[in-house]
Amino acid sequence: MRDSPHWWIQLEKSLQRNRVHAFARYFQVATVRPDGRPANRTVVYRGTVERGKDAAPYVTFVSDLRSGKHKDLEKCTWCEICWYMPVTREQYRITGCAEVVGASGADAFLREARKEVWCRLTPPLQAPFLAPTPGLPLRVASASKPEIKLDDAGVPDSFGLVLVLATRVDYLQLAKSNGPPPHRTCYYRNIGAPDVKDANAATEVEVWEMEALQP
Amino acid sequence: MRDSPHWWIQLEKSLQRNRVHAFARYFQVATVRPDGRPANRTVVYRGTVERGKDAAPYVTFVSDLRSGKHKDLEKCTWCEICWYMPVTREQYRITGCAEVVGASGADAFLREARKEVWCRLTPPLQAPFLAPTPGLPLRVASASKPEIKLDDAGVPDSFGLVLVLATRVDYLQLAKSNGPPPHRTCYYRNIGAPDVKDANAATEVEVWEMEALQP
Repeated sequence: MRDSPHWWIQLEKSLQRNRVHAFARYFQVATVRPDGRPANRTVVYRGTVERGKDAAPYVTFVSDLRSGKHKDLEKCTWCEICWYMPVTREQYRITGCAEVVGASGADAFLREARKEVWCRLTPPLQAPFLAPTPGLPLRVASASKPEIKLDDAGVPDSFGLVLVLATRVDYLQLAKSNGPPPHRTCYYRNIGAPDVKDANAATEVEVWEMEALQP
Repeated sequence: MRDSPHWWIQLEKSLQRNRVHAFARYFQVATVRPDGRPANRTVVYRGTVERGKDAAPYVTFVSDLRSGKHKDLEKCTWCEICWYMPVTREQYRITGCAEVVGASGADAFLREARKEVWCRLTPPLQAPFLAPTPGLPLRVASASKPEIKLDDAGVPDSFGLVLVLATRVDYLQLAKSNGPPPHRTCYYRNIGAPDVKDANAATEVEVWEMEALQP
């Protein structure tokens, strides 16, 4: 397996240092609505999926496939995660493309990942996926009977696992009192550089470049 | 003065109940970049500006007028604030248009509001507005000498106060253990209804409507 990119190692450390707050695992995801306006909501980090030996881990969260979030991503797959870590005063802005894994995904590995995440959710967190469409006026929702089917793995077809393939990570360490001044680093993903470490490999690999920025 | 809309009264209560965490005053703002992709970052709530007797208060934050955020808002003024309150497990999604107040704004009231917010910032928070352009590669920024002018009020011309005029507020109360189930309410701003309370007034007023939604 390829080494994890530097930003990923750092993110794992940040999660560890902020684990005193359960909500340090929450982040905000911005998308663009079909009408071209921005949308933003809080979601919960559901771990990573590693796909292929040459790629960085995908950041995952879950989404109801009947939600506005899913409709946004159908039209424009770009999203930007903003993740603020309250203890360490760090911010990660992860720009990337979202891939949504539903019941009918062709990739067996991703279908399995979706099922695993579903099984880890507690019943109160599973319940909304079996309830009426989120965002529907309650007077309409109360009268409706949702048509949810379970797939072969017993997962409702409303349940989506969203994988974010990062292309850019903008990291900001805010200043602390009596600490060093703020600093900011940007990581860029480059695809296509030949893997010079392996003379037999003709495959393109993922390369991350970094640059210090003015905070 | 007109009564504050219901969502605003609730937001003030939430701020009060979450004040144990200074970062409960941080929220995430999504914008659309000039290339049509979403952007997202954490900013600090800087209080409200009340403008006109018939309007809801504007939510404010500050922005460097040389930043990407400002460039986004120049092209598309729509933004969506996502504000998560960790103690009370509430989320506000405030959709609205952003108005940026800079040094040359014609409105004396808003120029004064901008100056007041500037004067409330501590010197470490004022410093970036006098430093090189944020987001510039550090090797370039270190060599550059920023050309910042002070306006008549002594405020740097890089300093912008952003006012968000809300048109829609989507409020979500997440479930707590042993508490009531989650609930969600959406508030919509309607302009144009005649003010029936005042027979002498011919002015249009701001009306907020609300609807319970499926969480």
